This record gives sequence, structure tokens and C-alpha cells, in this order.
Amino acid sequence: MITLSVDAMGGDVGLDVTVPAAVRFLARRPEARLIMVGDESRLHAALAAAQAPLDKITVRHATQVVEMDEAPQSALKNKKDSSMRVAIEQVKAGEAQAAVSAGNTGALMATARFVLKTLPGIERPAIAKFLPGENGHLTLALDLGANIDCSAAQIVQFAAMGSELVKALGLNANPRVGLLNIGTEEIKGTEVVKQTFALLRQSSLNFVGNVEADSLFSGAADVIAADGFVGNIVLKTIESSVKFMGASIREEFNRSLFNKLGGLAAKPALNGVRDRFDPRRYNGAIFLGLRGVVIKSHGGTDATGFAFALEEAYHEAEAASIEKISQGVADSLAALAAVQAEQAAGEV
Amino acid sequence: MITLSVDAMGGDVGLDVTVPAAVRFLARRPEARLIMVGDESRLHAALAAAQAPLDKITVRHATQVVEMDEAPQSALKNKKDSSMRVAIEQVKAGEAQAAVSAGNTGALMATARFVLKTLPGIERPAIAKFLPGENGHLTLALDLGANIDCSAAQIVQFAAMGSELVKALGLNANPRVGLLNIGTEEIKGTEVVKQTFALLRQSSLNFVGNVEADSLFSGAADVIAADGFVGNIVLKTIESSVKFMGASIREEFNRSLFNKLGGLAAKPALNGVRDRFDPRRYNGAIFLGLRGVVIKSHGGTDATGFAFALEEAYHEAEAASIEKISQGVADSLAALAAVQAEQAAGEV
Repeated sequence: MITLSVDAMGGDVGLDVTVPAAVRFLARRPEARLIMVGDESRLHAALAAAQAPLDKITVRHATQVVEMDEAPQSALKNKKDSSMRVAIEQVKAGEAQAAVSAGNTGALMATARFVLKTLPGIERPAIAKFLPGENGHLTLALDLGANIDCSAAQIVQFAAMGSELVKALGLNANPRVGLLNIGTEEIKGTEVVKQTFALLRQSSLNFVGNVEADSLFSGAADVIAADGFVGNIVLKTIESSVKFMGASIREEFNRSLFNKLGGLAAKPALNGVRDRFDPRRYNGAIFLGLRGVVIKSHGGTDATGFAFALEEAYHEAEAASIEKISQGVADSLAALAAVQAEQAAGEV
Repeated sequence: MITLSVDAMGGDVGLDVTVPAAVRFLARRPEARLIMVGDESRLHAALAAAQAPLDKITVRHATQVVEMDEAPQSALKNKKDSSMRVAIEQVKAGEAQAAVSAGNTGALMATARFVLKTLPGIERPAIAKFLPGENGHLTLALDLGANIDCSAAQIVQFAAMGSELVKALGLNANPRVGLLNIGTEEIKGTEVVKQTFALLRQSSLNFVGNVEADSLFSGAADVIAADGFVGNIVLKTIESSVKFMGASIREEFNRSLFNKLGGLAAKPALNGVRDRFDPRRYNGAIFLGLRGVVIKSHGGTDATGFAFALEEAYHEAEAASIEKISQGVADSLAALAAVQAEQAAGEV
């Protein structure tokens, strides 16, 4: 049985989003259990009002809330009884198999690192997300913003973690790892990216070389690794491109009465397009590299979006064994270190 | 009268694209003149076959062609009589007001720099492009791939050049300059980006702060400056997002007979969407920071796309005075240097 711990107070809205999302999620996953963390009395009232299945929900009191603009260090130091932290502590204590929060990303990452610690060999966790692609292919992209000014070794760690997650989820037994770059040739990219290329080629990962951003959706790789600065900009560029194209489609269909009538006839197909690209469907980023599963929901999402984040957490908690990922990452980093040691010895 | 010089042999295809594009362009701009540079006899044959208006076209012989995968240094050293180089030399000699090539980007940039030289104060030229946006707003984005591992000073130079181009084209008298970043707060970003933020704030440019990639199309800025690595990835992410969404729309409209019929009724609107996002319409990147106008066409475009690149070159050549841009850039860089000198004096 999978139990998720939920930071019920997190996000721009808090309870009015997380509670209805919990109800929706439990209707779809009646076998799951939730620990809802936050202000006890407000939580009880909200759950009652939403007619939540109380036999599947444990309320866990927490007196504090991390603000959306609060600095990570402040959250760590001053918010030891925040709904965010207590939710993560449930994972640490083995009470829950994954924690979900719509709280502020920096504080959530800092708290998750502090409470859960990183996997052996991992300097810093990364934020990962599956991008949809042609023919239903999923590509895990990381880091999407946790780490700025990364070293080549760190990007290799991201690649190793991503590869193990894709394996653990049963998506691909030998995931193809690509390096996000501005050309396919080895000589392309920043100094760090060139160093990363060299390391990835020496590694035991199934490295398929550079992947350009114009093949993000082509299924050219199962894992695409990048520095968090670039990854975050890619993620937001995809979001803004989809939004802009959606707005342009609406404009075209409102251009004339004739186009409006065409839009009515095309409504089922247009709704299909809208649903496919509904950002709420892709809500739920994975914090990868921790000794536990933590899922970050978009702060401004609604109940539908937050329910998708819960679903993502359930999926990770069910399929991805942290022990297996940890072992796989350790093995590939050890193999790379051995190759490098051999090389260094040869050079002496 | 505006004359453009055309690298008629450049691109994946060469004459079979550039000559029909020239014919199309001259039909739309009968007042323009073209210098077509390349193999004389092949050019004459192609122009005759295409029934080109020969009174508006001068053929200029060049014996060599720069290969699409040729290294910039090789092009500089071994291809002194290439169609690419001779086309740029027409601008240098004042025979043409802009050069257009679909040849390889690296060689074109190196040759353009070598032949035309950079503007005073500009270390390296940048690749710039106008992104379409909400309510018809255009945003000039640069650098889109010419410069990797840029310094903060270089990114400020890009911002200054972009600002002057937007002014020169009459789009905005006081262009709002944004810095591409992963958050709006000053503390966000890589070390170089943070340094760039500080410099831009000291500058005389109309700096509006960080712009996130999720507002690329919102019209939040008239110029968005970035390192060429990030800028190139953003450009290609937009391309792949639009392509992926287009493919998904087609899939939805083919899902059922009912959807197909809806698609027929919606054809005018759908064609409108297709035309708006036709990448050929946006063909033609500007090499900015040179003592002359050079436009790079996509190497794989067709005659329609290459004609758009010619149109872009015509537009730049007509409106954007290099002298004015040069003066404006020099003024803003001098103003920034003065502020910095004052600061340094204050710190002593």
C-alpha cells in the first residue's frame, strides 16, 4: 500500500487546492492513503466540507507554513514545524513513500536535502520532468532549475540518476542518454558541456551524444541532461511556446464568423489538442538524487493540477525503488571513476 | 535604391533555391536590385530558365563554394574566391547594402567579421532575430548562437546593439531591454548573468530587468539579451515546440472521421495557424555588430524561405543605418564605461 504525505498548506492557494485534489486523487486511487500535513483544525474543516474519505486520510498537525517567497535558509532555520518539512519527515520516518508540495522550490529542495540527504556519490539533487514526445515517447529532462553553474561531474551525476529512474520505472532497460547542446558535433558547446561530453563518453551510460533542442520531442534520447540554468529556460520556453501557439489558434478561430463556425465543427479535435497540452497534466516535477521521493507541484496550479502531481508521486513511489536507483547510480559513477583512474595512471 | 548581394551557391541546395527566390523577391520589390554571386555560367543558365528579370540582376562570378560543413578557418584561408566571401565583399565595396547567404553559419560569421570588421567597442558580433509575440509585438532576441561562454561585458554589448537596431528600425524610440534569466529577482542566474544584470543596471539602456523564458512572447521587452549557447537553445526549443504542437494538431484532426470532417470545416482557420507558424516566414537572422548588413538564411530552406530572408535583408538595408547604430552603441558603451570609471575612482 502506498502512502503519500502532502504539504496541505503549500502553494499559492493551499487547502482550497490541496484538499479537493486529495479527494479527486483518492477517488481514482482508492487503494492509496494520504497523510495531510498542516493546520489541524483548518484541515479537518476543509476535509469535512469536501466530503473527503476520512478512512484513507491521516491529518498531521504542523504549526508553520513556508512562505512562497521565503529564502531556503530562513525556511531551514525558522520553520522546523512547517507543513513542508513535516511532510518530508514522514518520508524519512517511513510513514509515507513520497512527499508532495506546491511550496516554494528553493525551500523545498533545501529542506528535502537536509531531511532526506542525497544518494551516495550525488553532490546535488536535480529537478527532473518527463517531456511528452512523438509517438508517445517520454524523455526525462534534467536538471530543470535546481543547480546553476554546474560542473561537468554534476551533469554526469544528473545523467546517471535520470538513467536509473527511467530503468526503475520500466520505461527502458538501457536508456539512451543525450547531452543538451547547440550542435551534434563533439566540439560544440561551452567548456563545461565539452567536458561533460568527454566524461559521458567514458561512462558506462548508454550515451548517444549531443541532442539539439530542435529534437527535444523526437524521442532521440530517453534522458536529456543539462545544467539547471539551461534546463529551466528550456522548460519555460516550451511552456511559453505552447501558450503562445494556443492563443494564436484561438485568435485564428475568432477572426471571422466563418472561422468561428469552423471552430464549432472542429470542437472535439480542438478540445483534444487543448487537453494534450494542458500544463496541469504535466504538473509534478521529480526531485531526483535524494534518499526518498519528493514531488514538486507548480505553486499556482489548481485542484486538477495538484491531483496530477499526487498521481505522479504515486507512480514514482510505486515503481521506483530508491535502493535500486541508488545502487545503479553508485555503480555507474564507480565505473566512470575506475576509467578515469586507469587513464590517470596511464598518463603518469 | 537598395541592392542586395546574394551568395547564390550557398545552402543545402544552392541555385535551385536562390534563383527562384530572387525572382519571387524582385516581383514583390521591383525597385530593388540584386547581385547574384556564384558560378557565372550556371547562374546565367538558371536565371534564364527561371525567366528572371535580368535588367535587375548583376551576375558576379566566384569560382569557389564554401561547404556546409567546412571549418570557418578553412573557409577564410582557402576560399578567398567563394560566392559567400565575394557576396560580403560587395557590401564592403559599397556595391550592395546587405549580403544574404544560406551558407554555413560559422564560416559566414568568420568571413563577415574578417571582411567587414566589427563596430567600435564590439568584441564579437551576435546573431539576432525578431520573435513574434502577443498583439503583434516583436522582440529582438540575441545572441542566438554566435558566441559561447560570453562575458558579462559581451552580453551588454549585445543588448546595446539590439537596442540600437530596434531604434533604427523605428520600432521603439526607447527599447526596453531584458536579460534572459530563470527568475525575475536580481539574485537569480549564473555568475555571468548576475554580473550582466549589474552592468545593465548601470548602463544608459532602458533596462527592465530579468525576463523569464515563460514571457518570451508577452512583449515584456523589446530586446532580450542572452549568451549564444542559451539563446541558440531557446530558438531551437521554440522551433521544436511549434513543430511538435503542429504534429499533435494534425493527429487530433485525424483521430476519427468526425474530427476529419471538423478539420475540413475549420480549414481556413487551421491554414491561418499554419501560415502564422510557418518557419519560412521567420527565415533570415541578422548578424549584428558588423560594419555592414549580413543576413543568414536557414541552410535547408526552400525558395519561399530564402525570399523571406531577402525581404529581411531589404528591410534592414532600407531602415537601419549602420552609422546610426554604430554611434548609438558607442554612446551607450561610453556612458557605461564612464559610470564604471567613476565608481572605481570612488572605491579607491
